[in-house]
Amino acid sequence: MEDWETYSKLSGSVVMLGFGSIGRGMLPLLERHLDFDISRMVVIDPDSTNRSLLDERGIRFIQERVTPDNFNSLLPPLFGFDGKQGFCVNLSVDVSSFDLLKLCRGIGVFYIDTVLEPWKGFYFNRESVMAARTNYYLRESLLSEKAKVPDGVTALTCCGANPGMVSWFVKQALVNLSSAVTGDLSEPGTRSEWALLMRNLAVKGIHIAERDTQRSVLRKPLDTFWNTWSVDGFVSEGLQPAELGWGTHEKWMPDFARRHDSGCQAAIYFEQPGVSTQVRTWCPTLGSQYGFLVTHNESISISDYFTVKEDGVVVYRPTCHYAYRPCDDALLSLHELLDRGGELPPFHHVLDEKEIIEGQDELGVLLYGHQKNAYWYGSRLTIEQARSLAPYQNATALQVTSAVLAGMVWVMENPCAGIVEAEETDYKRCLELQRPYLGDVGGYYSEWTPLEGRSLLFPDNSDPNDPWQFRNVLVQR
Amino acid sequence: MEDWETYSKLSGSVVMLGFGSIGRGMLPLLERHLDFDISRMVVIDPDSTNRSLLDERGIRFIQERVTPDNFNSLLPPLFGFDGKQGFCVNLSVDVSSFDLLKLCRGIGVFYIDTVLEPWKGFYFNRESVMAARTNYYLRESLLSEKAKVPDGVTALTCCGANPGMVSWFVKQALVNLSSAVTGDLSEPGTRSEWALLMRNLAVKGIHIAERDTQRSVLRKPLDTFWNTWSVDGFVSEGLQPAELGWGTHEKWMPDFARRHDSGCQAAIYFEQPGVSTQVRTWCPTLGSQYGFLVTHNESISISDYFTVKEDGVVVYRPTCHYAYRPCDDALLSLHELLDRGGELPPFHHVLDEKEIIEGQDELGVLLYGHQKNAYWYGSRLTIEQARSLAPYQNATALQVTSAVLAGMVWVMENPCAGIVEAEETDYKRCLELQRPYLGDVGGYYSEWTPLEGRSLLFPDNSDPNDPWQFRNVLVQR
Repeated sequence: MEDWETYSKLSGSVVMLGFGSIGRGMLPLLERHLDFDISRMVVIDPDSTNRSLLDERGIRFIQERVTPDNFNSLLPPLFGFDGKQGFCVNLSVDVSSFDLLKLCRGIGVFYIDTVLEPWKGFYFNRESVMAARTNYYLRESLLSEKAKVPDGVTALTCCGANPGMVSWFVKQALVNLSSAVTGDLSEPGTRSEWALLMRNLAVKGIHIAERDTQRSVLRKPLDTFWNTWSVDGFVSEGLQPAELGWGTHEKWMPDFARRHDSGCQAAIYFEQPGVSTQVRTWCPTLGSQYGFLVTHNESISISDYFTVKEDGVVVYRPTCHYAYRPCDDALLSLHELLDRGGELPPFHHVLDEKEIIEGQDELGVLLYGHQKNAYWYGSRLTIEQARSLAPYQNATALQVTSAVLAGMVWVMENPCAGIVEAEETDYKRCLELQRPYLGDVGGYYSEWTPLEGRSLLFPDNSDPNDPWQFRNVLVQR
Repeated sequence: MEDWETYSKLSGSVVMLGFGSIGRGMLPLLERHLDFDISRMVVIDPDSTNRSLLDERGIRFIQERVTPDNFNSLLPPLFGFDGKQGFCVNLSVDVSSFDLLKLCRGIGVFYIDTVLEPWKGFYFNRESVMAARTNYYLRESLLSEKAKVPDGVTALTCCGANPGMVSWFVKQALVNLSSAVTGDLSEPGTRSEWALLMRNLAVKGIHIAERDTQRSVLRKPLDTFWNTWSVDGFVSEGLQPAELGWGTHEKWMPDFARRHDSGCQAAIYFEQPGVSTQVRTWCPTLGSQYGFLVTHNESISISDYFTVKEDGVVVYRPTCHYAYRPCDDALLSLHELLDRGGELPPFHHVLDEKEIIEGQDELGVLLYGHQKNAYWYGSRLTIEQARSLAPYQNATALQVTSAVLAGMVWVMENPCAGIVEAEETDYKRCLELQRPYLGDVGGYYSEWTPLEGRSLLFPDNSDPNDPWQFRNVLVQR
């Protein structure tokens, strides 16, 4: 048995909501790096598929769907009312992060999640206006709670791979870029210093640029949606309005773009879903690629965090959005989803580490528009590496679970930080904790711009004089 | 050895241009059904990959690229100048159908092709205006030659599966629909009678609705374009402007649609390529699907053929276009083609009958908007059926080669018909000749319309009161 480093110690109960592809993968990381009483651990999931992993460890499993009606009575007793410090690890779908976070803070329990998830029905509520189905809307609720009750027990939201880890990558990339451009090795301390650094480096924007090439030896059956992580999660966000942090350098906006009536104004949304919105981006292994501009919390929180204001007026803000190329089987599943008018097929399947025979999840941040053009910094984690690093998960899951682990440790090291977003944690400490699980981590400069490889055969609504305009990034036909 | 029925007899030489996936598949069909002197046969292709099939039969092979500079000297001697009736079977890419057809008619040789192909460079000529890269343009050249020299030796153009066979399916579908709706079993004799029948049945339009589900047990490597037929052919037409026959019932046109300055006016084109233009359609096995509106000659020729004019004014014309869902590997290859800015990857590959382990090519015509809503008539040919019916080809190729065979026989039975399009041949005779190779052939009524399964979460530029408007068929976001 290997001798794993204990990162932190927890006196009370770990209550984990959700035991799908991410929950399963958390288990070995908690066992390795957290000193806690596993006999107090509880896992809740309406689906018992993976429960044998819990049974063989003697971990209590509650097969239940957490709902607006039962969460208030179901959850608090699980932490024991004995003054010991509990931790709620929310890895579920269809459970409101906001309500859970408030409950946990009310009873003094640490809280972490990987997404600002709403209660079931939010994503597909045809009665709600489009702006109310956005991540902007979900995040604004959180920000207003944070403004109302700024202190108290730490709750870290949106701390998976993305959102989460990628915000740490942005800071690391900025520090690296700064050192390469100016030779200055000092690091910002405050939020406003970070934003000023980004502005001074003339970063126009950031793509969360991901390419997943994992695949099974098998071919996907026609009536099945295959993915490397939650099918429900991917389809829900893919059918939300596309959203992006909207930078101050942008000169053009598509006619289906909309601003919000209130809030931080760091982002806009589109009157079309992410699965219908493609963008040009770049990843180191395969170079230029099309990705889907699927809405993600980090697109908004990063643009917001790195905003520079003078006298209350925004003078600098980077554009920020996701540019996600899912694995081939998910891409084919998406086509079939559209064939079916957005209705999910009868069977969902998450490809596990045994089924996947090759490929990697390449996930990083592409900082662009600066003096050195473009700089991608991130993790390239192959399925072979993932398998050798930790059991029960593929490369995609390990990037998430190791970020949750790092986030949990940060929470325990900073127990009274209130409501926190990933940008507000200590990126260095978190990446230090996570790095053993990320495969190849590094930075790559690129001369690529979205003006490269454009069709000369058709009219092209591009801006040839300003390569990094979103007008050039968006695939318009 | 099976005793195949001899369909026809040819006294002179068969000269076949192109020996790719289609040329290869023609060989057994010619051997079975054509009484001809195989020692006079010549095959020309710049690529010698498949030549062993020729060598083992003692068929002469010329490894050469046919060009504007050499075709006039290279081809005529191959027919022998001995008064025997030769047949030029053009299955090549990058060789002008128009120039070849004129040459053949000039020397009294039968001619057939499966596409109005231009000389190399036409599809990707950035100097030429968009309208000059259309199939409408290519067809208008042919129509003007036909008007100039209407008689003479028969040259049948665009007679593969589609264009070709599908025009015969349209007539068969009309006859079936007429019998179902009116009980009238009589058949039209002339072109204007056919057009009147379509109008009287209130057919609003026709999709050439195809779904290819053939696939290999292997996964496609990343640097390779896989397809079930010519990669060059598919990519060329996919990157041409999208085109469709434009019906008189249409009330709305996308803002990227353009009319032509001259010619028959049966079609319009889009200022965007077919690979970026998706439409909603329906096939019997899997139901509703998205397909690519790739330009095809039959979209124009069918709309033109079934046009009703009164006093020279068009009073009825059906909409007609292709709605093609290629096989999964081609779909993934298309995504990667766009990643690369339309540049083909280093390796192309056509999946052959040995590699493909399952799936079918389902190719038919969906007549819509009439009293019985929608009627799909076509061929569903599985890879297993294709393998058992003829060697050297997959299901896609067999639908093409058997149409070429039927067309050749029709040409020999109608030796002095001049320049002919598939709609002008005898559909009954041709389908009779082809049917043994088409697997399951039949008609299917459907209640599906493009208003089904639309997103209620986003603005939708649809016409809810007129289901079969192109506005509803086109995927707008």
